[in-house]
Amino acid sequence: MDQKEKAIQMHREWNGKLVTTSKAPVKDREALAIAYTPGVAEPCKIIAENPKEAYNYTIKANTVAVISDGSAVLGLGNIGALAAMPVMEGKCVLFKEFGDVNAVPICLDTQDTEEIIQTIKNIAPCFGGINLEDISAPRCFEIETRLKEMLDIPVFHDDQHGTAIVVLSGIINGLKVVGKKKEACKVVVNGAGSAGVAITKLLLRYGFVDVTMCDREGIIGPDYPNLNWMQKEMTKVTNLSHATGTLADALVGADIFVGVSAPGIVSAEMVSKMNKDAILFAMANPVPEIMPDVAKAAGARIVGTGRSDFPNQVNNVVAFPGIFRGALEGHAKQITEEMKLAAAEAIAGLVSDEQLCDDFIMPEAFDPRVADVVSKAVRDHIQ
Amino acid sequence: MDQKEKAIQMHREWNGKLVTTSKAPVKDREALAIAYTPGVAEPCKIIAENPKEAYNYTIKANTVAVISDGSAVLGLGNIGALAAMPVMEGKCVLFKEFGDVNAVPICLDTQDTEEIIQTIKNIAPCFGGINLEDISAPRCFEIETRLKEMLDIPVFHDDQHGTAIVVLSGIINGLKVVGKKKEACKVVVNGAGSAGVAITKLLLRYGFVDVTMCDREGIIGPDYPNLNWMQKEMTKVTNLSHATGTLADALVGADIFVGVSAPGIVSAEMVSKMNKDAILFAMANPVPEIMPDVAKAAGARIVGTGRSDFPNQVNNVVAFPGIFRGALEGHAKQITEEMKLAAAEAIAGLVSDEQLCDDFIMPEAFDPRVADVVSKAVRDHIQ
Repeated sequence: MDQKEKAIQMHREWNGKLVTTSKAPVKDREALAIAYTPGVAEPCKIIAENPKEAYNYTIKANTVAVISDGSAVLGLGNIGALAAMPVMEGKCVLFKEFGDVNAVPICLDTQDTEEIIQTIKNIAPCFGGINLEDISAPRCFEIETRLKEMLDIPVFHDDQHGTAIVVLSGIINGLKVVGKKKEACKVVVNGAGSAGVAITKLLLRYGFVDVTMCDREGIIGPDYPNLNWMQKEMTKVTNLSHATGTLADALVGADIFVGVSAPGIVSAEMVSKMNKDAILFAMANPVPEIMPDVAKAAGARIVGTGRSDFPNQVNNVVAFPGIFRGALEGHAKQITEEMKLAAAEAIAGLVSDEQLCDDFIMPEAFDPRVADVVSKAVRDHIQ
Repeated sequence: MDQKEKAIQMHREWNGKLVTTSKAPVKDREALAIAYTPGVAEPCKIIAENPKEAYNYTIKANTVAVISDGSAVLGLGNIGALAAMPVMEGKCVLFKEFGDVNAVPICLDTQDTEEIIQTIKNIAPCFGGINLEDISAPRCFEIETRLKEMLDIPVFHDDQHGTAIVVLSGIINGLKVVGKKKEACKVVVNGAGSAGVAITKLLLRYGFVDVTMCDREGIIGPDYPNLNWMQKEMTKVTNLSHATGTLADALVGADIFVGVSAPGIVSAEMVSKMNKDAILFAMANPVPEIMPDVAKAAGARIVGTGRSDFPNQVNNVVAFPGIFRGALEGHAKQITEEMKLAAAEAIAGLVSDEQLCDDFIMPEAFDPRVADVVSKAVRDHIQ
């Protein structure tokens, strides 16, 4: 049986990958009177008096909602709420297995930005955090920004920030390997969707100065056709030399390439025009922007992809479980930029000096230390 | 330690009464590739092609949402979403423990009818059923009615229908004990809120003819002050003799009293004016409309309450877990009147002829057969 057949068979067998389980036994009348009425009225009254007590008496303490409108699911595109469920359930499984965080999948029967915002705001009380997932750009930017303003629990669009954190952790280690300074590097990010924008912002925040974004029509600048509002914002802080041209033009003399775009669109020739000791993250899935062996033959020094069968896999699972665990433990109201940077440093720090080399700049997804160090880094940065 | 202290201590210890648990192990890369990307794309594609397949591949198969706006919580009143959480978590615990149904508590940060309807409609895709809970009347009637029209999964307001089903099951057995016919009985329902309305409707549907509703100002008829739209509807099918007067007036010559109202408002004298072999359900909590010993001394034959320390406890837990389990197993689109009547008959049928007596008209809440027979009754009535 191949992987696809196996996945179908197992999903059918599971018939839902999550169950809710009770911590409160109700084997007799007395137990029922504690966990439910009349005893349950007591914690209700305590919370009614002081809403913060919800963290001490309810699942808000350790439960996040994984919410999608099904508009940009994996490589499948806009498949809608119901068909997105297996992915959201899978994400919840990862929250639990990697971070010991309880997670509930919520798929929304609307793709209207205002309705999504209102719906999430309305169901927020019972959760300690909101993980947005697979919502298409540019709507994801507005939804996340508005909800962050409205809610007093973390709202985190993992496709943006999880990816950005993990890429940054790889770049931190990559620079150690090649011995370059972030301030002196020329960075090219290809793909101006949710991940590309978030990566660019986090790299700038971290201290990179020379970052250029590209999309289908080449280098993004004020004259690029049909920019959305977020991409327009990005033109103010990227491509400061106002370059124009193709992705190939952008890569001439570049030190770092980050691709969240499409299979095979970076050629060996483009890589050969990059600076010495170039670092590439080619994360198109399942086929990267350029295959690692081709990139290396063309002169690249370090190559990461989204795939587990090549070295240096960029896998969000090293970030989001620990990030939410730390945020929940500390009753954080937001995931701040400081927390994201701290998480990236913590992930990078898991690769020891002895391990660190061209083909080992990222900790393994199954490294059992990951969630602990990431959650601690986040907790240490709660204001 | 008394029960209240114990409830506080245990709720603090549980720190949330529910956990989400994964059925899908992700111990290595291969398992991860099945439960999550890339394998997970396969069930997504199957569901995108045929939405009904969601019942075969996702938690929709066996998960309900327990949803409240916190507007009418237990005896606590309008305590809001956050403070209602311990109750909703408790309800989810009961779904699991009594019916093996997975349940997710959702407390809504709005008490606006339209917003509630829209929000529930938007989060419905991932659930196999919606259990509405502790939403104040008359908003609960509109919310439930509108959602039933919009959604293709069962929407069930347990405070209404769960209570009505269990009361009917008790009345079915009570009539067997006293040897009366439903068509010949005079019934008085006191309390014209969500439960009172639903009980009245189900009794009429079952075949009772002479039902009178009362509320604070006495007998409800067209001239009763400030009726809400649902109560106005009820005047068309109840109190067919157009009686006016007090609850005491209504009870003269009555065979059955159902109270979902307030402590101690039925006196011994009122009971003494009822017909011979009167049946009373005095369900105000924790103090009933009349205490069982007082009612019996005044001539009542059968008395049920909401309390577990008296005989004949009316406890919704014998209804809703099995009802939803049956509905989920049969992929029901609605809980119909036929299903409710069948559930009531099934519950009543669990009391054997040998057991049946004045003080044993209801099966025990912990009777292990309950959920099975109720779910089968419901499943047998799916069209």
